[in-house]
Amino acid sequence: MCGIVGYIGSKIAAPILINGLKKLEYRGYDSAGVAIFEDNDIKVVKSKGRLSILEEKVNEEKPQGTIGIGHTRWATHGEPNYLNSHPHVSNSGKIAVVHNGIFENYMELKEFLQTKGYQFFSETDTEVFANLIDYHYKGDIVEAVIKSINEVEGSYALGVICRDCDSKFVAARKDSPLVVGLGEGENYIASDIPAILEYTRNVYILEDKEVAVLTSDSVKVYDNHGTERKKEVFKVNWDVSSAEKAGYEHFMIKEIFEEPKVIKDTINPRIKDGKISLDSINLTSEDLEKIEKIYIVACGTAYHAGVAGKYLIEKLARIPVEVDVASEFRYRDPIISDKNLVIIISQSGETLDTLFALREAKKKGARVLSIVNVVGSSIARESNDVLYTWAGPEIAVASTKAYNTQLSALYLIALDFAMKKGRIDEEFYKRIIEELRNIPKAIESILENKEIIQKFASEHYNAKSIFFIGRGFDYALSMEGSLKLKEISYIHSEAYAGGELKHGTIALIEEGTLVICPMTQDDLMEKMISNIREVKARGATVLAIAKESNKQAEKAADVVFTIPDVDSLVAPIVAVTPLQLFAYYMAVQKGCDVDKPRNLAKSVTVE
Amino acid sequence: MCGIVGYIGSKIAAPILINGLKKLEYRGYDSAGVAIFEDNDIKVVKSKGRLSILEEKVNEEKPQGTIGIGHTRWATHGEPNYLNSHPHVSNSGKIAVVHNGIFENYMELKEFLQTKGYQFFSETDTEVFANLIDYHYKGDIVEAVIKSINEVEGSYALGVICRDCDSKFVAARKDSPLVVGLGEGENYIASDIPAILEYTRNVYILEDKEVAVLTSDSVKVYDNHGTERKKEVFKVNWDVSSAEKAGYEHFMIKEIFEEPKVIKDTINPRIKDGKISLDSINLTSEDLEKIEKIYIVACGTAYHAGVAGKYLIEKLARIPVEVDVASEFRYRDPIISDKNLVIIISQSGETLDTLFALREAKKKGARVLSIVNVVGSSIARESNDVLYTWAGPEIAVASTKAYNTQLSALYLIALDFAMKKGRIDEEFYKRIIEELRNIPKAIESILENKEIIQKFASEHYNAKSIFFIGRGFDYALSMEGSLKLKEISYIHSEAYAGGELKHGTIALIEEGTLVICPMTQDDLMEKMISNIREVKARGATVLAIAKESNKQAEKAADVVFTIPDVDSLVAPIVAVTPLQLFAYYMAVQKGCDVDKPRNLAKSVTVE
Repeated sequence: MCGIVGYIGSKIAAPILINGLKKLEYRGYDSAGVAIFEDNDIKVVKSKGRLSILEEKVNEEKPQGTIGIGHTRWATHGEPNYLNSHPHVSNSGKIAVVHNGIFENYMELKEFLQTKGYQFFSETDTEVFANLIDYHYKGDIVEAVIKSINEVEGSYALGVICRDCDSKFVAARKDSPLVVGLGEGENYIASDIPAILEYTRNVYILEDKEVAVLTSDSVKVYDNHGTERKKEVFKVNWDVSSAEKAGYEHFMIKEIFEEPKVIKDTINPRIKDGKISLDSINLTSEDLEKIEKIYIVACGTAYHAGVAGKYLIEKLARIPVEVDVASEFRYRDPIISDKNLVIIISQSGETLDTLFALREAKKKGARVLSIVNVVGSSIARESNDVLYTWAGPEIAVASTKAYNTQLSALYLIALDFAMKKGRIDEEFYKRIIEELRNIPKAIESILENKEIIQKFASEHYNAKSIFFIGRGFDYALSMEGSLKLKEISYIHSEAYAGGELKHGTIALIEEGTLVICPMTQDDLMEKMISNIREVKARGATVLAIAKESNKQAEKAADVVFTIPDVDSLVAPIVAVTPLQLFAYYMAVQKGCDVDKPRNLAKSVTVE
Repeated sequence: MCGIVGYIGSKIAAPILINGLKKLEYRGYDSAGVAIFEDNDIKVVKSKGRLSILEEKVNEEKPQGTIGIGHTRWATHGEPNYLNSHPHVSNSGKIAVVHNGIFENYMELKEFLQTKGYQFFSETDTEVFANLIDYHYKGDIVEAVIKSINEVEGSYALGVICRDCDSKFVAARKDSPLVVGLGEGENYIASDIPAILEYTRNVYILEDKEVAVLTSDSVKVYDNHGTERKKEVFKVNWDVSSAEKAGYEHFMIKEIFEEPKVIKDTINPRIKDGKISLDSINLTSEDLEKIEKIYIVACGTAYHAGVAGKYLIEKLARIPVEVDVASEFRYRDPIISDKNLVIIISQSGETLDTLFALREAKKKGARVLSIVNVVGSSIARESNDVLYTWAGPEIAVASTKAYNTQLSALYLIALDFAMKKGRIDEEFYKRIIEELRNIPKAIESILENKEIIQKFASEHYNAKSIFFIGRGFDYALSMEGSLKLKEISYIHSEAYAGGELKHGTIALIEEGTLVICPMTQDDLMEKMISNIREVKARGATVLAIAKESNKQAEKAADVVFTIPDVDSLVAPIVAVTPLQLFAYYMAVQKGCDVDKPRNLAKSVTVE
């Protein structure tokens, strides 16, 4: 998730843009840049790395223009480098664009524009869009932007300046946040309120597919047919700290609320004409035939995604999979050769244990496919193939949205492999793809019911020991639910396979012990109900996470949190959200430092 | 572990023998029998099943003799059936024997005796011994017994009656307990004091290789060269309940103290001429070549033995191994064919989840080798191959000695496979076999130092959360140490791979949190020391289990419990004992019902 700032008024724009970008620094970025309208031309200053480097460059070049857009980039399409950093300028030099989000159909648009003679220098989708506007530009920049956004699929927050326009610039958004700041004789855009909070507290919050045209003295907002819309001024009462969290109390809950969007960002661009396309990963049916076994190696939350991944890949593609904790894997002298594919999962791409495991696997001849959130990170660089999770920067130490996108990526991989190996038929393939596309909506409906979990947490936050039990996929979910709770609430919780508790650990269940039971797997329902009865017979209080239509869960458990009726196969991506919410509200109730739990680092770069 | 009772005096022997055997019923058995000297002949009554069946038979036949020996059998060599049950009578009908223990070289003796014309009707080692005495018997039964025990290897507690002797019988022992009870005008033998406690409290405790000759009025004890020994009378002050536990406070601690013996019983008979021989399991080098992957499937404690087994087999034999919890395995539709060997581990042989997993594996064509403690149990019967752990009956619900013998069995399997696959050389093979033979001694020295752990437990039994961390083999150990503690002390503890704690769970470590660190693996020592530093930096109190020569452990941990300097490879069998002792003393300190923890069953025969 990148940052956007824009300014039009009577002051020199550059310092205002840099100042605004600094306010977004906490969100992470890897390059930055500004485009300033000056002397009837567009002057672009950009650089890889820290904002201070950009600031130095700006101080040298001293652009004097009073219209400008600025950007901090968190790499998605293409590595963090100078060429890929924003703003992007069209071939003609007429149009400069900053963009957050992902244009899903940029490859087709790129090919089309190439037939029209356009050339491309970066790997970004944004450069394509700049040239698309240029292609549509016949003297009216607003019309060109509207035409262009009507041709793209995906998500965007945009700032566009045009060499021909000395008194206005254009902004637009869909699925990526963008606000317009209203000043006196000057106006702003920003992807996040903190960037402009010291200049104005009056904003327009842009809706999907709205286009704003800013001058020094006016802001007009249109829909994507060019019809003007009446906007209400929103008064920002937040302080800087809550503005950073978009009004949420903590980054963690903000990030949980981003899940629908980031899952969409991770899944949709990889589905083209109803088929999964894993970016540039070129694993053919023949390659897959040679793979005798897949290893999934990761740590912590990513490891739990791997556990679900094992079930998935074995179930769908029937390739044997072993999941291993990275710190154990590397010292075990694992039996690996070029007949193995090793899937590495890491949010940061810098997890040291995982990086060393990757090197061990490569040394032994395995092909390495990594699922990583940070473009250009060490793990991404050293892997043979990378499938990025486009979860955006995760600020809270306890991972939430990254986990959902890691799972999403594993579904894409499992389905792709299964289809290539001929293990599933077209109908099943299409049906599950459709199920995946519907996940964001399902999570939205869970988020709407968050108060049920909040209330439950308010009644149980004094618990000393909590158990999570589940079977199959729900066991993987249980592991993640338990870890989340431990990380931020410091309550000792533990996950068990539903059938395994009775082989010892059930001794710990006493009157009132809380047991959380995700039960999303239709075919394991009866067995799971038996396991719930076992713990309830010893006095446990049971919270079940079950599908709406599951009437058995209601009878067996004390409280049921329902999730929409999705297919059992994709339920894990959906059902983890209530577990994350549970951990969150338990920690909030206990007064813990949710975003920065004690003893933990966001990215573990020690062994 | 079978039960033995013997009587000589003026009363009718049979009711006294049956009464004595009843006192040993709690230890488990599957057949029973008596041999009575009557009318210058030996009358044998025996049956499969409960003692009440034997009692009925005896009531029908009403043997009137006043000399007799009785036995309850817990099957080791051969299934529990009529033929295999004791007493065993020589071909000539002259000698009847009851026996606890294992004659390791019985196959050679059997072959020898066959050349002399002896025939064998049962699968037992005891029948061989009865005929061996017969072979040596030239009119002096004591001489014949002494000659015979000098020719056998292994363990034994023996009662022998002879058709020619109307006023005496003979007893002997090595490595299996046997006492002589001293009465007035009558004398007794018993494998355990409760059997004779209502008749006398004066006993001789026989030492290894001592031979006792009993008449109504006298008991003489000889060494195995026939030299008479002076014995001191031991006065039994125990009540029946503590007598059942051989004076120990609980079965659990009694069973921990049996570990040296049962490990010996499990390992030594499988080593012949310096080579491992896995009973009748006929897995050739060619068979092993066909095995692409081994699954180990089990529950609870047995699952933890399996985790260590995976490391072992992969390390030594380089065959990929996947360990799975039985309740998960069977519902996962595991990828299995005739190219897989499935190793099933269960103490009782009746664990339902495990039994169903076995059937699933067989259905899919896999060969099943089970490691089981109960001969003739369902799992043993349904497996293609069985390697019994000769741990004897385990009464305490929390498994201890069975775990050590399961591990021992896995070592034998791993070494055998490795040798057959040519992955290790003769020298290494012989060295590790020697290391295995030395394990009982190493555990004895640990048991001598139990007070160190007892004291540590007395200082920490109020702990609410305890963590176990270890790397490699020590991770498997940690799992088992943690489960043991949970089962009997109800303290929530959890095991983590040493490197994985920092990926989340370290948030739970605060001032005074107890962390137990087995650190027996020389090559992982530095990393483990780092992990100890990590938790100590957050305030943890660390108890390390380390080898005597490990000076680093002393510096890093708060308290170190040392184990003898065994090879890191075999250290897991040794190092689990201190963890079992720790769980035991914690539970005792807390006043828990150690042998029968709440909510748990000894053998889990539900799903």
